[in-house]
Amino acid sequence: MASNTDLDFLFNPQSVAIVGVSASQAWDNVAGTYLGALLRCDFKGPIYPINPKGGEIQGLRIYAGIKDVPDPLDYVICCIPARSVPQLVKDCAAKGVKAIQFFTSGFGETGTEEGRRLEAEICDLAHDGGIRLVGPNCMGIYCPRGGLSFTMDCSKESGPVAFICQSGGNAIYFTRHAAQRGVRFSKVVSYGNAADVTESDLLDYLAADPESGIIAVYIEGVRDGKRFGRALREAAKVKPVIVMKGGCTEAGARAAASHTGALAGSARIWGGLLRQAGVIPVATLEELADMFVTFLYLPVPQGRRLGSIHIGGGAAVVATDSWVSAGLVLPSLPQEMQDKLGSFLSTRAGVSLNNPVDLARQFYSPAVYSVVKALAEYSGIDIIVVHFPLGTTPVVSSFPKESAFPLLDNVTRVHRETRKPMVVVIDQLATAEAWETAFACQQKCHQAGIPVYFSMNSAARAISRFLCYHEHRGGWQADNGGPD
Amino acid sequence: MASNTDLDFLFNPQSVAIVGVSASQAWDNVAGTYLGALLRCDFKGPIYPINPKGGEIQGLRIYAGIKDVPDPLDYVICCIPARSVPQLVKDCAAKGVKAIQFFTSGFGETGTEEGRRLEAEICDLAHDGGIRLVGPNCMGIYCPRGGLSFTMDCSKESGPVAFICQSGGNAIYFTRHAAQRGVRFSKVVSYGNAADVTESDLLDYLAADPESGIIAVYIEGVRDGKRFGRALREAAKVKPVIVMKGGCTEAGARAAASHTGALAGSARIWGGLLRQAGVIPVATLEELADMFVTFLYLPVPQGRRLGSIHIGGGAAVVATDSWVSAGLVLPSLPQEMQDKLGSFLSTRAGVSLNNPVDLARQFYSPAVYSVVKALAEYSGIDIIVVHFPLGTTPVVSSFPKESAFPLLDNVTRVHRETRKPMVVVIDQLATAEAWETAFACQQKCHQAGIPVYFSMNSAARAISRFLCYHEHRGGWQADNGGPD
Repeated sequence: MASNTDLDFLFNPQSVAIVGVSASQAWDNVAGTYLGALLRCDFKGPIYPINPKGGEIQGLRIYAGIKDVPDPLDYVICCIPARSVPQLVKDCAAKGVKAIQFFTSGFGETGTEEGRRLEAEICDLAHDGGIRLVGPNCMGIYCPRGGLSFTMDCSKESGPVAFICQSGGNAIYFTRHAAQRGVRFSKVVSYGNAADVTESDLLDYLAADPESGIIAVYIEGVRDGKRFGRALREAAKVKPVIVMKGGCTEAGARAAASHTGALAGSARIWGGLLRQAGVIPVATLEELADMFVTFLYLPVPQGRRLGSIHIGGGAAVVATDSWVSAGLVLPSLPQEMQDKLGSFLSTRAGVSLNNPVDLARQFYSPAVYSVVKALAEYSGIDIIVVHFPLGTTPVVSSFPKESAFPLLDNVTRVHRETRKPMVVVIDQLATAEAWETAFACQQKCHQAGIPVYFSMNSAARAISRFLCYHEHRGGWQADNGGPD
Repeated sequence: MASNTDLDFLFNPQSVAIVGVSASQAWDNVAGTYLGALLRCDFKGPIYPINPKGGEIQGLRIYAGIKDVPDPLDYVICCIPARSVPQLVKDCAAKGVKAIQFFTSGFGETGTEEGRRLEAEICDLAHDGGIRLVGPNCMGIYCPRGGLSFTMDCSKESGPVAFICQSGGNAIYFTRHAAQRGVRFSKVVSYGNAADVTESDLLDYLAADPESGIIAVYIEGVRDGKRFGRALREAAKVKPVIVMKGGCTEAGARAAASHTGALAGSARIWGGLLRQAGVIPVATLEELADMFVTFLYLPVPQGRRLGSIHIGGGAAVVATDSWVSAGLVLPSLPQEMQDKLGSFLSTRAGVSLNNPVDLARQFYSPAVYSVVKALAEYSGIDIIVVHFPLGTTPVVSSFPKESAFPLLDNVTRVHRETRKPMVVVIDQLATAEAWETAFACQQKCHQAGIPVYFSMNSAARAISRFLCYHEHRGGWQADNGGPD
């Protein structure tokens, strides 16, 4: 059997068979979705749809069984009922298959004797046949470079982020959500029951994987806590590791047990394990995406002193509470600095020039460039935050991107000229159109190397965690993989 | 001067003048926006645009000054520079105007001697002339029944919710955001510096106002803390009062001081004041909207026992952690109940029938009706939660509303038949299209009397606060103004 740190073959198969494809149902069935996902993700090798009924799908011949595949076969995606799986594993062993990924559920996670027996049986068969198993009860692998995917709308672009996820649904949602947030992945593995390849195997592998600069883990429970703790510690020594623990309440743990058969363990034990391992804990998948955005796009600031620029006094007050509550500092500005900022404005009515800076309506004027630049050049400030709420203009309910872009051009220009760590928060997104504008603005900022967040609290939390991480590592400078 | 509880005239003027309208700039200027807002909000009486230059706007004659208005004048919206305001107040007194609302800033909030002097001067002039002032430095009043508004996209529909807001920008955003969330207002007042009409006056008035069933307050600071504490207590005795305190950190308080001249006070003092007053504290404007949605659409449940229905095990695990962390209870279901739920399903593969219930792909089948109904009729459960994530389907990135509606029809049918308190959470909104679907689904649910939330944490927090509120009041039953 391959060693744990040599799982490359999982991510780069030369050929794939999808078992359970239906010529009549096409996309309506899960196997059809995998086929579509591989086609859209430009999988380079041959794809063999499998169904005893035969036929054709998407111009591809459907083979009756694994043994009928005419060429060597590396990788199998299994979507047939659990009872048929032992025979499939035997057929795969005979064919020389290296790995099988199981969408199929109905094993250990059912909590039944029969389910556990079946899971043990396929593990034994796989072990004897030299096959590694991903799952069962999972979505499997998304690896854009290898052309593998489990969704039909995945990005084909690779990135530095790896994600290990015990839940298939969370893997789908998070991959999609993070992609929309400007995050690109090296490898995502939804591993379900972890009957063979475990979270620890994957962590060991990804810690050494040169394509993966950051690792995130969504985990409900583990069988071997010691091994997992060790794997986390080792991985966290060499790259940032972010962990979300699902099932941290008693009822949540019960749900986890019937979901993936995971022994969730107590919140206290997990808290200790994560702290000792030096990983960054998050409470939601959205917070996880915030951390990725931060690591990818924010250069490491020199400190916690924030200068923030707003339209609207109330927005500035609420934002300031968010930042300070998260542990950031908004230093008061010296009078001469305030006078300097004021010199760029046509009027001071409705304006506040002490930090936070509220430019009122002049926020949209070209003066914003001079104000942001002066703040960026001021040595008393480590990070600039530009707060761009889309919901406070009295005239229209949403904000077309054309109106937003001139403001952002001023901000990105300062960033280009000063290289000061900058953050843009786009919030007050009351309508679907506002979200469209927000996503367009995000793209523009990310291209310029400025991270974007969609709420002040999430920005504050993420940046505080990012600063904590670097403070504890004593000035570690990330080659963070983001655009420069 | 009118007594504090008799501020009706502020909300129902017979005629309005807008001072500072510009014939050439139209909507580009604030006064033009107010004009547009009044026209769109169907203000029934005459509107008099005012500008010394004269001219015409939107088919209305622009008058040179207040004294040139040919008919009696009740209410004035002032958008001219601060230095011109004393003369305006004198003109208004001569004309018999009852109230002036000031967008104009540049008074006490500047922190300058001159600003404070000017604010005192206009208060004296107004007092002598029998005029009440709203502001200065505010957006003023939105009252759909009176035809008053400060945004051009306000709803003309009235509702039971009153909102007092020290910040103009927050008033605009929140009114818009809450409207999108299905909340309709009786009266919204952005009152800025509170130079004359104060937050306490408004609270006294709204506590007695038959049109207002719930009151919310966004407040940065008060001049008379005792009076405000008393007003809060009295209001909270007769209707739910929800309070968001801005400026609870030191830097936030500094921002509040330069925003509205407010003395923000310490977080500790405010915490005590709010607790003693029996109000519901919230930390963000979004949480405030969640509370309104809850009070408007959720009947008071008998207890904290939740039954939750999901698609996807990971989503169920994360959701359960949210609920339990917020203080709700997910009781385990008796085996016979689980068997009953199972009897409605075509397969149990991938399904979990203990609470939380994960229906996997059968979530979208008609079986969902029977499952939800059986749970709703089960006496061991007080509230049903249906979790509808839009981001977990492997096929497409967003979910068209046509695909969502059949599911919701099953849910609303159970609600109609059982009257069990039910909650729908629509989350995993990764794209602008997903938000569109979410808003369409929300409308359908709200029409059926089921509150909708867009994240599990926000639903859990809001419902827990709602239950706390009713538990402390000992079974108070809300005539909550929502659809029945």
